[in-house]
Amino acid sequence: MTDLSETVRTLAANKRFSTIRDLFSTMNAADIAPILSQQKESDLPLLFRVLSTETAAETFVEMNPEEQEILIRGFSDTELKAVLSELYLDDAVDIIEEMPGILVPRILKAADPESRKLINELLKYPEDSAGSIMTPEFVSLSPNMTVEEAIEEIRRTGLDKETINICYVVRADRTLQGSVSIRRILLSDPDERVADIAETNVIACETTDDQETVAKMLSKYDLIALPVLDHEKRIVGIVTVDDAIDVLQEENTEDIEKMAAITPSDRPYLETAVGSIFLHRIPWLLLLMLTSTMTELIINLFTEKLNIFGAIAGAMLIACIPMLMDTGGNAGGQSSATVIRGISLGEIEFSDFFRVIGKELTVAALSGAALAVINFLKMLLVNVIVYHYAGHDLTVYIIASITISLAIMLTIVVAKFAGAALPMLAKKIGFDPAVMAAPFITTMIDVASLLLLFALANIILSHIH
Amino acid sequence: MTDLSETVRTLAANKRFSTIRDLFSTMNAADIAPILSQQKESDLPLLFRVLSTETAAETFVEMNPEEQEILIRGFSDTELKAVLSELYLDDAVDIIEEMPGILVPRILKAADPESRKLINELLKYPEDSAGSIMTPEFVSLSPNMTVEEAIEEIRRTGLDKETINICYVVRADRTLQGSVSIRRILLSDPDERVADIAETNVIACETTDDQETVAKMLSKYDLIALPVLDHEKRIVGIVTVDDAIDVLQEENTEDIEKMAAITPSDRPYLETAVGSIFLHRIPWLLLLMLTSTMTELIINLFTEKLNIFGAIAGAMLIACIPMLMDTGGNAGGQSSATVIRGISLGEIEFSDFFRVIGKELTVAALSGAALAVINFLKMLLVNVIVYHYAGHDLTVYIIASITISLAIMLTIVVAKFAGAALPMLAKKIGFDPAVMAAPFITTMIDVASLLLLFALANIILSHIH
Repeated sequence: MTDLSETVRTLAANKRFSTIRDLFSTMNAADIAPILSQQKESDLPLLFRVLSTETAAETFVEMNPEEQEILIRGFSDTELKAVLSELYLDDAVDIIEEMPGILVPRILKAADPESRKLINELLKYPEDSAGSIMTPEFVSLSPNMTVEEAIEEIRRTGLDKETINICYVVRADRTLQGSVSIRRILLSDPDERVADIAETNVIACETTDDQETVAKMLSKYDLIALPVLDHEKRIVGIVTVDDAIDVLQEENTEDIEKMAAITPSDRPYLETAVGSIFLHRIPWLLLLMLTSTMTELIINLFTEKLNIFGAIAGAMLIACIPMLMDTGGNAGGQSSATVIRGISLGEIEFSDFFRVIGKELTVAALSGAALAVINFLKMLLVNVIVYHYAGHDLTVYIIASITISLAIMLTIVVAKFAGAALPMLAKKIGFDPAVMAAPFITTMIDVASLLLLFALANIILSHIH
Repeated sequence: MTDLSETVRTLAANKRFSTIRDLFSTMNAADIAPILSQQKESDLPLLFRVLSTETAAETFVEMNPEEQEILIRGFSDTELKAVLSELYLDDAVDIIEEMPGILVPRILKAADPESRKLINELLKYPEDSAGSIMTPEFVSLSPNMTVEEAIEEIRRTGLDKETINICYVVRADRTLQGSVSIRRILLSDPDERVADIAETNVIACETTDDQETVAKMLSKYDLIALPVLDHEKRIVGIVTVDDAIDVLQEENTEDIEKMAAITPSDRPYLETAVGSIFLHRIPWLLLLMLTSTMTELIINLFTEKLNIFGAIAGAMLIACIPMLMDTGGNAGGQSSATVIRGISLGEIEFSDFFRVIGKELTVAALSGAALAVINFLKMLLVNVIVYHYAGHDLTVYIIASITISLAIMLTIVVAKFAGAALPMLAKKIGFDPAVMAAPFITTMIDVASLLLLFALANIILSHIH
């Protein structure tokens, strides 16, 4: 990719635009766009003009908003009209939403009156709703048509529709009666009525449904398009599977960002300004830094009393804190990531609460026991090698190691319980499981592990000493 | 959903199968499958028999392997034949791959000879390859056909094809000449030659390509199906967009699992045995527990020399360790999650290395400075309230607070650098960025933050004391 960008840059510098035209004619819009992104800003409108109208429109959709803005400013009114007339309306709306207000009237003026009306309608839907990602360009058939008439209708209107693979059977009042695939139409007798071959048990969504819900419906039912109904059950548009994939990927990115304590942004990383990245991250870092002050207070409180355990055991307790907290954090993180992902995929619901907790506690008991034993053996080994021969009494080391190993075991049980329970509870009370989860769970586990460690030390070590 | 499962359970207990049939006839396979999962095992074959053959096959595909096995064991040969003949071959292959060896011959015997041959071919492709997820059921047209003949061919063969929306133009030697959408066919003159209306610049993949690469191609180029070629460039199958979505979701789950230090599994959580969950998690917990032994050794080393800083500063240094490590971990986690996701989406490549590092270091400097200042103010406040009035000298607190705040700032710079650089380097040398990342980065940041803290203390505090 980089090499080709370089080549085009050189060709453009030498005004070899016909060579670039030949080069681009063998390529796909999704591959041309990143090459154009690497070109000099001032060359963009010129390079764009070598593309065929159809490829130009497709490439335009793939570019980022800044580049689209440069192009729109560089376009003549005729060029803008040509690109707009090739765009699907949902793409046109996406682009208009990203443009500075001053350009919008010019874009709307370049659209034909019918499209302008539809674009204005689509712009009114709330962000991330089905209405905002749908296109009104679907094939609409009337129930009384014959198959032959339907094919005629598709031939007449199909060119401008985003898909003809699924057609919708619409009553006179615009309510949805059913859907019929192009396959079914082609395989049916030309004299059959459309109403008789249509599937009436149609999956549909409403304009106000969240885009994530809509994308998951397309994925769950293996659909190529999903009809969108208004509140009177009239069909107003469709969402196609290519847009659903984009939404799913966007939502996955958001989940990952939230788990990593980042406020989600919908821009690709390299196109996001440093200031914006900073602002999406700093509030969480700050909040988490301040909440982990609790661990400071707890350690302060206990170090003052640490001498009751004796110097050796005290030092061992202090030294094991990072290991204990990391292990707890990792164990809790495993559970919370599993549960958050399960909720997000619809595999885990609140009704599964006790099953999930049961599983996690069993896994916690097994993991906790295994890690405790291995930690004990490791500590013994390290202590024998590092300290015993230095002349200290081994008993203290053994008892301190047992205390720490028990703390690991209990910490893992608490961590896995919190990691599994909190995302489910968050979801239940209407919070986002991913936001709730990873970062706060870590802080909670830190506090819990410290309290467990010092409580066990109090019980076991203070009596021995 | 739960309520409907309950209803069906009661109806089944009362042998009201005709009511269940009516109920299911209004429903979609993707909704029937989870209801069947909640029924008594012994009722499953009976309940399955009320479904129409087509719905039965679709529902069968949606069920989990254990249930599929119960059903296959319960089916008569005729039933098994009926379900198999309705399945698309890629689904049949998926199911056979999950069945115990003893059932496979019976399933293959029930398939018709042509399907059996194709299934056997598909079973040979490596797991997670394009070959293993493709279906050989696509519409193949010859270049010399007229549009009219093509429509005739689609009418004749289309019923058994997974999609007719895109047809493939195949030469006599089975190499791929081009593709043509059903839309293009319908909108063309009946006398035109297929070769003349076909798109020859076709995106295709090879049988051995990874399924993730293939799914991303479908998503990038907004395709409904992608042709799969063998090493002689002959078309052997297609991957459809519904399977691509499943692959993308699976790969996203894997990324999240790896980031959370879990070995990925391809089973839904609730269907995975506790032993298997344990085995997917424990190696990482163990490894990370043992690597964080390094922090123990560092703290041990330094606590022995802690008295040179004085009791108050020493206690403050020890108490701030969890906060310092958590803040570093969170900062590094933000960077690694962003970069890993960017790599996975194809937005970040190794050639962007210096741009990414530059961005992250700038964000790190801003975040580090902000957190250092706020931490200093917070420590001052806490120290004044908690300690100063207890009669200690404020100067030591202030200098120790400055030391800790500087440690926070440097830790964040190191954390963001490691979080951004390591996944990119991992990718470059052929490792999985997600595995490399989160857990190991945390351990590295822990060690780095401790060394920074004690080094700064050595420079600043030992001179003051």
